[in-house]
Amino acid sequence: MFKPRHVALLGVSKDRNKAGYKFLRALLDAGFAGQISLLGRQSGELEGLPIHTDARTLPADIDVAFNLLGPAQTPAVLEAAAERGTAFAVVFTAGFAEMGDEGARLQADMVRACNAHGMRIVGPNCMGLFNLPLGLNLTEISPLPAGHVALVSQSGNVAVTLWDQARKHDVGFSCFVGFGNQADIPMHEYIDYLGHDDDTRVIAIYLEGLRPASGDAFFEVCARVSRIKPIVVLKGGRTSAGRRAAESHTASLSSAERVYRALFEEAGVVEVAQMEHLLPVAEALMRCPPMTGDDVAIVGSGGGHSTVCTDEVESVGLRVPEFPAELVDTLSGLLPSWAPKKNPVDMTGAYINDPSLFATLTELVMTTCPSLDAAVNYGLYGLWKDGMLAEDSPHDYVSAAPLLGALQTRLGKPLVFYTPYADRPHPSFTAMREAGVPCFDTVACVGVALAALRQRGRFLARASEPLPHRTEAATLASASGRYDTEVAAYALLARYDVKLPTVLTADSPEAAAAASERIGYPVVVKAILPGVAHKSDIGGVRTGLGDAATVLDAARRIAISVSDAPGAPVLDGFTVTRDFGRRRELIVGVRRDVSLVSLGIVGLGGVLTEALDDVAVVLLPATPARVARALSRLTSARAWGAFRGEPEVSPGALADLLNQLDAALRSDPAIDSVECNPVMVVGRELVPVDAAIAVTDKEPM
Amino acid sequence: MFKPRHVALLGVSKDRNKAGYKFLRALLDAGFAGQISLLGRQSGELEGLPIHTDARTLPADIDVAFNLLGPAQTPAVLEAAAERGTAFAVVFTAGFAEMGDEGARLQADMVRACNAHGMRIVGPNCMGLFNLPLGLNLTEISPLPAGHVALVSQSGNVAVTLWDQARKHDVGFSCFVGFGNQADIPMHEYIDYLGHDDDTRVIAIYLEGLRPASGDAFFEVCARVSRIKPIVVLKGGRTSAGRRAAESHTASLSSAERVYRALFEEAGVVEVAQMEHLLPVAEALMRCPPMTGDDVAIVGSGGGHSTVCTDEVESVGLRVPEFPAELVDTLSGLLPSWAPKKNPVDMTGAYINDPSLFATLTELVMTTCPSLDAAVNYGLYGLWKDGMLAEDSPHDYVSAAPLLGALQTRLGKPLVFYTPYADRPHPSFTAMREAGVPCFDTVACVGVALAALRQRGRFLARASEPLPHRTEAATLASASGRYDTEVAAYALLARYDVKLPTVLTADSPEAAAAASERIGYPVVVKAILPGVAHKSDIGGVRTGLGDAATVLDAARRIAISVSDAPGAPVLDGFTVTRDFGRRRELIVGVRRDVSLVSLGIVGLGGVLTEALDDVAVVLLPATPARVARALSRLTSARAWGAFRGEPEVSPGALADLLNQLDAALRSDPAIDSVECNPVMVVGRELVPVDAAIAVTDKEPM
Repeated sequence: MFKPRHVALLGVSKDRNKAGYKFLRALLDAGFAGQISLLGRQSGELEGLPIHTDARTLPADIDVAFNLLGPAQTPAVLEAAAERGTAFAVVFTAGFAEMGDEGARLQADMVRACNAHGMRIVGPNCMGLFNLPLGLNLTEISPLPAGHVALVSQSGNVAVTLWDQARKHDVGFSCFVGFGNQADIPMHEYIDYLGHDDDTRVIAIYLEGLRPASGDAFFEVCARVSRIKPIVVLKGGRTSAGRRAAESHTASLSSAERVYRALFEEAGVVEVAQMEHLLPVAEALMRCPPMTGDDVAIVGSGGGHSTVCTDEVESVGLRVPEFPAELVDTLSGLLPSWAPKKNPVDMTGAYINDPSLFATLTELVMTTCPSLDAAVNYGLYGLWKDGMLAEDSPHDYVSAAPLLGALQTRLGKPLVFYTPYADRPHPSFTAMREAGVPCFDTVACVGVALAALRQRGRFLARASEPLPHRTEAATLASASGRYDTEVAAYALLARYDVKLPTVLTADSPEAAAAASERIGYPVVVKAILPGVAHKSDIGGVRTGLGDAATVLDAARRIAISVSDAPGAPVLDGFTVTRDFGRRRELIVGVRRDVSLVSLGIVGLGGVLTEALDDVAVVLLPATPARVARALSRLTSARAWGAFRGEPEVSPGALADLLNQLDAALRSDPAIDSVECNPVMVVGRELVPVDAAIAVTDKEPM
Repeated sequence: MFKPRHVALLGVSKDRNKAGYKFLRALLDAGFAGQISLLGRQSGELEGLPIHTDARTLPADIDVAFNLLGPAQTPAVLEAAAERGTAFAVVFTAGFAEMGDEGARLQADMVRACNAHGMRIVGPNCMGLFNLPLGLNLTEISPLPAGHVALVSQSGNVAVTLWDQARKHDVGFSCFVGFGNQADIPMHEYIDYLGHDDDTRVIAIYLEGLRPASGDAFFEVCARVSRIKPIVVLKGGRTSAGRRAAESHTASLSSAERVYRALFEEAGVVEVAQMEHLLPVAEALMRCPPMTGDDVAIVGSGGGHSTVCTDEVESVGLRVPEFPAELVDTLSGLLPSWAPKKNPVDMTGAYINDPSLFATLTELVMTTCPSLDAAVNYGLYGLWKDGMLAEDSPHDYVSAAPLLGALQTRLGKPLVFYTPYADRPHPSFTAMREAGVPCFDTVACVGVALAALRQRGRFLARASEPLPHRTEAATLASASGRYDTEVAAYALLARYDVKLPTVLTADSPEAAAAASERIGYPVVVKAILPGVAHKSDIGGVRTGLGDAATVLDAARRIAISVSDAPGAPVLDGFTVTRDFGRRRELIVGVRRDVSLVSLGIVGLGGVLTEALDDVAVVLLPATPARVARALSRLTSARAWGAFRGEPEVSPGALADLLNQLDAALRSDPAIDSVECNPVMVVGRELVPVDAAIAVTDKEPM
């Protein structure tokens, strides 16, 4: 598909103002050397090529047919081309699934018909395709900046914007594919191909959503490709997706945003949050070695810039450590007395006498402190006072730039440059980039680029970690189909080896008191309320009960509270369990997902769960490493390490619990989610003291 | 100072390559119409002006002397100028307090000597001063873009960067002052002046730090000025300041970053996080009316851009609500069937036939839904396909722009435009800006600009809220000077009307059991451990004790745990209090501060305090409104409203508690902070169940 020898344009026009002509013009201008066939309404010739008027007369060896026809004609013409043996159709045409149900049917029929003849479809509703080293351009934009970034975009105007921005960053593209509705070919298949494309050094993606059920395959492809070359993604629809998520409790906690975050981190895909950061981060990943630690040296000119650079670097979680005294002393011999030298190093205006001072000072700093992992240069480089330097300067900005590139290569550590003037083309910045040093026009890019390089360093360090594979789910023949109380949920979990506390049931306050004597004090008494999610909100839970009389009284009060509650819940008795007191509380759950077979969630549990909404997704099967990474994504990360006299929460124990819950989930197709909240952290043990199972509304209970 | 009739340049040079000439050139080029006097080493004339070689011969009516001399000569020359009656000196020269202790002494002596003769000093180590409407330019950059933004910057190179960026945004400056070391004039005095300057419509600030003890004055000036015109600030040193904060517990929780956030929000100052956002936000605040609600309409062209716009708008806390069905129906009559119309509205490529469609559709949307508070237009406006439009289009991009401006005026609601091409000068965008519509080149600017307009709307809505004033502190004659246990802290707090639970002390486990009988069960028993911050971490706290025997046992176990703890803490007996069970827990405290007399903090309390670090600063005296705003800044904000069956935490009760703690703090100059953690939320009551007082290390205990 990316390397066709024979391309057809379906829907050409002799009118030079129409798309049907412009696409041909762009293809010819790009210098495509292969064969071109045309299909149009008017017979004759166009640019010396004959126009077919009937798809059934097209040649039999077409690799890629680019379709510009209207949605009404498209299905029949494509089916005819497929019959003639055309391998791929790129369908620019809109008016399919994005229109609603009718369009979706039309699209599905078209894909089925074409697939039956062996043809695969890109799009529909997509921006086209290009492979610039081959002179192949199936978009309406020409010329395009050539280079080594492959772009895979769900949106046409985001792609157009990036092609425009690329010139500013001195980067260019190898291949592009717009995947639009991804009716047939799912996005990860393009990634798979581009992983092997020699002209592509980094893959940039604009993604709004994966095809349903393609998340596991997306993960496997990306995890493999990103070992070879970097992948960076901008995920559109981050917030609206989250806000419009399903109303179910677990569903909203494991919103799409968090699923993607887990997928990306585990697969080594770097995510950026802003469109303007996609290419700068791609540039950094392409040009620089990865960062193997968190420590950054900042060397440049200007106090304000040094402060905002430090802010950006520290705000992405990296460190700007103070230099050792010896280094500060050495720097004192080279710089004015009033120049700050502790990191950041401010060379003040000294570079105007010699811009190679950036390389000299950076080399001194990095070789004196081998524990530093990256360097940032900053300042009014290149165009300050119209590029004027001291008359006797041994270097100009252009000749000083390659010294930084050579230094980066020598160090094997990233070196990035910030100057506010890099937002316009200039030989100084081109020289820097050609030497391999990214040259950014915003301080924000310094932070996101270093964070990306650090993430890549972390990923490559664990690239040898084997990918775990999930065992097949065994559906329980005896699935009860009824899980609407904690007791029922516990019964299922027990079958999957979840370690549970002793739970006694009681059908009266007196029986609850008797049960407490067997459990040992203090105890918790809860109402059994089928279908009620938050028992404590209606007075259905009493904790810290110290003797039988207190339990009897508490159970009676529960009965009164519940009978007064709105919605007239049915009190089906009581449970009595040990009260483990005040502990750290987790939420641990699993659920089915539109992209993945199932997924896990871990987070801050207890009553604060909903107020803080601090949960992370764990890909399944869970492993200790995956759990540890998910915990580190939490705002409350610190609470789960050794904390205030309590030991670390064991990632291994959490992984086991998640896998047990997952086996329980997959034991019955009717189960949509299994959630334990809270899971109490009792020393090194995890004790689920509540459990809830939700069934899908697609299947009857 | 901003409107001098007579300016002197101290340190001029006849060498045209030197700063001593360039500053004069810039001043003459700006067209300054007042008198200019020169001081230099070589006598004679420069540009027709005589050069004085002795400061004692300078004229007596100089308003502003701009000093370029070296740090060695500067103090004597300035003192001589001050003696001659010069009113202000702007000291460009570096080499003072930023060099360390010696420089700080030099600086203090210079300020004292000049002040003695009535001269005030700007800087030293500052970038200069300009007032472009007056033709006054005391910087070395020329020409400068003129307009209505006043810039007040602590850093020279940040100012230079902003002057360069201004051209991209079609904005310009009225006045500028670099305040550098702010040795004499504190920053808020410039704000105060600019509030009255008719050429200034918005004030932009780059700030690294306020002068010590000037926070209260800064707040009062900004709160007054921002009622008249918007103020926007970029605070440099956000992260490093936080990280390098004092080691004391409360000090780190109320890090400088949070103090500034509270100061800015309460004073109506809009904060931006990135240098590249300062001017776009200033532009929006200058051109647009404020936003009075959270709902945003998004109308433009292109699916990907609409998605990323929605993400940016929702990620700053605003809403993109779905349109009512009637509006969607009306839009269906105007747009292709496959164009999304629910908000965002995607007009697809239809604007190429008529770019005034942006105004037409936006007006339809905004007038049909009067509940919407702002509109965003987006798309490939202006330069898409080299600006080509349909041949019969009634408008081009330039003539369509004022229609949006007129619409914004009619609606009285903000309208902002995003197009990726706005990063370069073009008549289309200039037309838009001249019509009053900000035209941004990044989607991120759309989000931060609308957030700023919303913050301004909220501030103006409460502009009539009276500014509370603090009562004078009464120092207690009987200040004990010893507050190193909870019991001692409670004793002080009780004197300031803090409502405390009953606390009984016991000198033995047996006495603790006896005390429990008087309190009523369940109880909490704690060790009294002078100077130990986290008693529970060493087994010094036992909760949920249900009877006397359990208390006896618990107290004995506490004694054993404590005696085993590292550091051999001294067990000074036990306290016994009621156990209020599992409740929402707050941290509430007050402390002295480098900028402010004292400040309050509120946040998520209990053992999670340190893991989540979720606290906000409250300016004192606390009011219910200030407390409510501080709570809304917390990640855990939702937990303090009505939550899971519990009532809202009363901002009034919290304000009372903070003011009582503040009175206790100020009763003794030795006290540095007072902190209650946790404060339990028991129904509508706030119950501090622990308290700690820290004394300053400057004063002996």
